[in-house]
Amino acid sequence: MWHQQELRLAPRSRGFHLISDEVSEALPRLGELQVGLLHLQLLHTSASLTLNENADPDVRHDLDAFLRDRIPGDLPYFRHTMEGPDDMPAHIAASLMGTQVTLAVRHGRLALGTWQGIWLGEHRDQGGARRLIATLNGE
Amino acid sequence: MWHQQELRLAPRSRGFHLISDEVSEALPRLGELQVGLLHLQLLHTSASLTLNENADPDVRHDLDAFLRDRIPGDLPYFRHTMEGPDDMPAHIAASLMGTQVTLAVRHGRLALGTWQGIWLGEHRDQGGARRLIATLNGE
Amino acid sequence: MWHQQELRLAPRSRGFHLISDEVSEALPRLGELQVGLLHLQLLHTSASLTLNENADPDVRHDLDAFLRDRIPGDLPYFRHTMEGPDDMPAHIAASLMGTQVTLAVRHGRLALGTWQGIWLGEHRDQGGARRLIATLNGE
Repeated sequence: MWHQQELRLAPRSRGFHLISDEVSEALPRLGELQVGLLHLQLLHTSASLTLNENADPDVRHDLDAFLRDRIPGDLPYFRHTMEGPDDMPAHIAASLMGTQVTLAVRHGRLALGTWQGIWLGEHRDQGGARRLIATLNGE
Repeated sequence: MWHQQELRLAPRSRGFHLISDEVSEALPRLGELQVGLLHLQLLHTSASLTLNENADPDVRHDLDAFLRDRIPGDLPYFRHTMEGPDDMPAHIAASLMGTQVTLAVRHGRLALGTWQGIWLGEHRDQGGARRLIATLNGE
Repeated sequence: MWHQQELRLAPRSRGFHLISDEVSEALPRLGELQVGLLHLQLLHTSASLTLNENADPDVRHDLDAFLRDRIPGDLPYFRHTMEGPDDMPAHIAASLMGTQVTLAVRHGRLALGTWQGIWLGEHRDQGGARRLIATLNGE
């Protein structure tokens, strides 16, 4: 079975946000698969998708703080600066974290580890709504 | 053909470890596929999977040394510090390296480049055994 | 439908290069898929594949400049130095950016966002031609 649909994520503040439940609930056809894969691809270049801890929100804070510290917006060799000091760091974070993930599906659910969640990395100050394409394949 | 199974990797020391052979040997059904994909997903948030050099172990040493140098555990803005100074750096490395890879399968084998191997990144001092889900799809 | 073929990318200078059109044109069978996935895997460990901006070439410049700045070749703890000061940084960039991507296919084309393109990261000074395996799956 193949199924593809576009998801829209409401605007969020800069930082990392847990979206596992939002993604699963938007995809009722997940329940049809005994075994398969879910592919998620953001349609943007200044936000990211990654798997990381689903419990303590401090982990999300700390990873965002690390990126802000290590990827400042005013590096002297940056040329792509027209869109503001948050823009080039957002492009860098998007490629470091990645903008697509593929996730195992088992018995009608995402086969995440106990502590794993799907994170949206919003790397712009005002990124607005984010769109992604979800592609399900399995049997 | 779809096939899914859980693999258990024995505990390893902090650093990068070559696991290509261990993964292939645990998946005899790889041999049934003329063309397909193997998806590997760690069920953890403080270890990683990546493709990199399979020959000189110094490459594994140097990448681990780089991460230890550039992601110290005592950054003043870290809040998630209860589990020790190796924990938050491990979460960061997991997202930078990634916790899932998808690999081409051709003629019953992983279609890796001559110098490519699958690396497990163990980013905790005492990470223990690591579990991953392997999903094979192809024909 | 499964389809797999090897692509060869002409030698490029160190830095990031937009390869979306080259990849799509080399894969006429993309046009047969209403829904599916394209998996691309470099067969090398000193180059990378990532999705990022397809418009302003300054974004590609800036990301390469950032990597050169933050991953120098003369770190005192590097042991893998025989192949020159560009080699170990190239291995690190390959794992940070990633060497494989999976892309949504919709209505016979890659379902990229308006500003998304596929980038080849050439992280060696003289990397030469780069090979990758393209695997198409869908219906």
